[in-house]
Formats: sequence, C-alpha cells, structure tokens
Amino acid sequence: MITSTSNQKIKQIVQLQKKSALRRELDVYITEGRKMFSEAAPEQIAQVYVSESFLARQEQRALVQEKCRAVQKGCPQIPWEVVSDHVMEAMSDTMTPQGILCVMRRQHARLEDMLSSETPRLLLLEDLRDPGNLGTILRTGEGAGISGVLLTRGCVDIYNPKTIRSTMGSLYRVPFLYMEDVDQVLAVLRSRRLPVYAAALAESVSYTELSYRGGCVFMIGNEANGLSRELTAKADRTVRIPMEGKVESLNAAVAASILMYEAYRQQCQKSPEN
Amino acid sequence: MITSTSNQKIKQIVQLQKKSALRRELDVYITEGRKMFSEAAPEQIAQVYVSESFLARQEQRALVQEKCRAVQKGCPQIPWEVVSDHVMEAMSDTMTPQGILCVMRRQHARLEDMLSSETPRLLLLEDLRDPGNLGTILRTGEGAGISGVLLTRGCVDIYNPKTIRSTMGSLYRVPFLYMEDVDQVLAVLRSRRLPVYAAALAESVSYTELSYRGGCVFMIGNEANGLSRELTAKADRTVRIPMEGKVESLNAAVAASILMYEAYRQQCQKSPEN
Repeated sequence: MITSTSNQKIKQIVQLQKKSALRRELDVYITEGRKMFSEAAPEQIAQVYVSESFLARQEQRALVQEKCRAVQKGCPQIPWEVVSDHVMEAMSDTMTPQGILCVMRRQHARLEDMLSSETPRLLLLEDLRDPGNLGTILRTGEGAGISGVLLTRGCVDIYNPKTIRSTMGSLYRVPFLYMEDVDQVLAVLRSRRLPVYAAALAESVSYTELSYRGGCVFMIGNEANGLSRELTAKADRTVRIPMEGKVESLNAAVAASILMYEAYRQQCQKSPEN
Repeated sequence: MITSTSNQKIKQIVQLQKKSALRRELDVYITEGRKMFSEAAPEQIAQVYVSESFLARQEQRALVQEKCRAVQKGCPQIPWEVVSDHVMEAMSDTMTPQGILCVMRRQHARLEDMLSSETPRLLLLEDLRDPGNLGTILRTGEGAGISGVLLTRGCVDIYNPKTIRSTMGSLYRVPFLYMEDVDQVLAVLRSRRLPVYAAALAESVSYTELSYRGGCVFMIGNEANGLSRELTAKADRTVRIPMEGKVESLNAAVAASILMYEAYRQQCQKSPEN
C-alpha cells in the first residue's frame, strides 16, 4: 500500500491532474469515481488506484477485483494498487474523493468514423473555454445521439478533470477530435454534402425553420465572443435561436443543447413523406 | 472616499455577499459590474459603490453620474460612494472586480402577475442546488419568453452572487417566487387549467408529443435526485426528454432549456388552425 504522497507514482498523478501538456505527452488522462471506473472499457484502463476505505466495503472490493481480473478480448489484467485515504485525497481533484481513480489510455477518434452514419449530426466547437460547458455538451450530445464533436485547438482540454466530471461518463462514448486543420475538416464535410450551420445572433434564419434530417454540423462559438467572423464565413449558412426580452445570448452549452435536440427531434419524427 | 475595509458599510457588504439570511432580513441583494448597473431599474437601486479606477475613466464616471442623478418617476437620487480599489476587491465576490457594485432592493413577484398572459409558460423548480444552473435557467427562461419561475424553499438562494452572475441580467426581468406552500400554488395553477408537467426519466410521454400552446408549467427536480415522488404525483402528467446511449439524465439547466424552448417553438409557430 502506498502511504506517502512523495511516492513517485502519486506525484505523477498529481501532475497529470493539473497539466494538460503532461497528459498529452503521456497520451493518458485521469478519471475518478465509481461510475467512471464501472463504465470504462477494460482495455483502455492503464492503472487503477483505490483507497483503503473504498476497498473495505465488500461489494466495492468485489467490483474492483472482478473488473481488473477479467481477461477480456485478450487484454491483460488491469494493474491496481491500494493507497491510504490520505494519499487518495492528495491525488484527487475533488474535495471528497470517492476512493477510486483510473489512469486511462486516450482513444483517438477519426473523422471518417464520425461520418459513417447516413445522416451524421456533428458539433464543431470554437475556442470553448469553460470546462463545465464542454462536459455538459458531451453529456447532452450523447443524449441527442450526435455522431461526434470537433474542437478547435483553442478549446479547453477535454481531459480537464472538471470537464470529465461534467460529462458524467459521456467522455467514453462520444467521439471527439481536436482539429489540426479546420479547413481540411470543413472540406471533408463539404465533400459529404453535410450542411454546416454557424450559430449566430442576428441576420439569420431561426433554427426551427431548417430541416436537419439529412444530417448537419452546428458550429458553436466561444462563451464571451461567439463564433469568429472567419469561421462564420466558412459555414453554409447561419442559424439563430430566437430570444425574447433583453437576452443578448444564451449559455454556450444551452445553445448547443437546444440545436442538438431540435435536430434529434426532427430525425426521430416520421417525416411527412414516409 | 472609503479606504478601509474595516468601515462598517464595507463590512456589511462583505456579509451580504456571503449570507443569504442577512440578505433576506434586509430585503436587499448585491449586483456587480457595469452591465448589472446599467440594466438596473433606478428605483430599485439602494446604494452604489464605485472604485477609484472605475471613476477615473471619463465615460464610466459619466455613466454613474447620469444614472444616479436622474430623478425618474419621482424617485430620489441614488446615493453613490467612492471606494479605493483595494476596498472594492474586498467587497467583490469576483477575482477581478469591474469596479462597480450595487445594493439592490428586492422585488416581490406575485403569482397572479405571472398568470396575467393568456397562455403563461412557467417553470417550477424543486430543490435546485447549483447556483450556476439556477442562473442559467433564468437567462434561458427570459430568452424563451417564460412568464415566471416558481421555486421550492429548498432551492439555492437566487440572490447568491454566482447565480446573479450567471443570469446575465435576467434576474431583473424574469419574475420569480419562492413558494411558501406548494400545494396552494398548484391549486391556483389548476384553477387556471394550466397543465403541469413533471420532467421525469421514464414511463412517460416524450416532450415533443405534447402541445404547449395553451400554456404550461414544467416541474424540474434537483440535480442529484430528480423530482421527488411527492411532487411528481401532483403533476397532471410526466414528460420525458428522450436520450440515446447510456445517458442517465441531462443537466438540470439543459433539461429546463430544452423544454422551455420546445414550448416557445410551438407557441411561435403558426398553428395549423390559424
């Protein structure tokens, strides 16, 4: 059992929680809590840490033992290590850690996989800065059945502990991709005849007046500034969420959710032709 | 100019930022920033504090002088006081204060005013705990043109500084009411034949299958537990937002936003009869 916070492994976890550059370099990320452990694909877990008191509960011990022992699809056992409660507190990004933490191998989604359905629905996020917003967008996106999320390099790190928490597990399941070259991605979308809509505030058609049944891409901008003029110009058209009162804009996660759910609603409803 | 943080007025502001009980007792709340000052109704502002460096900018000084001097609708001048930047930092709830802070008189909305339109759309929130969620709901609610928000006593204080910030000014414009007696409120809604829908996770009809054109009330539950069984039982029916994948629930503000915007979308669209 690891009982010292100066243990090298523990020090590295603390650094991984804080530094996106280190996470990127090692191609891993950290998830915390029982739900995130349970929902993780075994072959993606590199290492598990559990606290003494987490293991003290019989059914929690069984959960860890069973998952880590299972040799599924030819993947090796998952290494797990016990740490003192004090050490777990030091490793955790939360005030009251649940007592289980995983080092996860990153997955790398490909654009072509996101486009494998006949009518893909995608989000393209530009320079989103709030970790909670990004996490909420992934969570809602899974609910609305989107095919993937494309992110500009200026977006907050999706492996930020706060973002991961607010995805509520959707991080594992919604494909996403930080774009090296936005123009190249847009060219692929265009070659697939996928309409690209820029969420804008004015001079545009209401989102309720368009059909998304053939698939779509919604571009959502930064919380403070909205979409850049450059990116807006590259969309096929702009769409607006109508607003009453003196509201100048909606929260980015709320705007994305309303658009994704309208597209989902349309796709779920039988079209008049059928 | 106030230069000491031990000044009695300053001490009280610090307490007002922290303590909802004191805010309630004095029937006031605190707003911060230029936007909140500009959008405040003059007759509701009890006192303004501005920092030295805020006043140093000519156009900001003019803004304060003009608004505080204006004797509108017979209301007296608004008292304002200058404080050192250091004192402003102590008073502010934010890391980088904008330099202007108002003590506001509370408004008390009445249920009957919320019901004055022919087809009112209301939200009823049960024990919502996250200040940011509540603020976002008010902001989106104004955008979606809702008539008001009803809150159980277990909800977070709407005058919490974080909530106020995330309303982006909608706090001033969306009527809200903490309910002393939920049953009494529900009886009034029933007497108005306003359908009450409980947002639930299962065993219910999809939100897209109902008509909200005659007005509606959406009940939204607590972030962790959803709506209580007691309150759910008091609704006319339950509605569900369909979810793909393994998503167990949506963020409370997102769920409220999707429902409010669907009701708004229906009300904006010309009905087939017309």
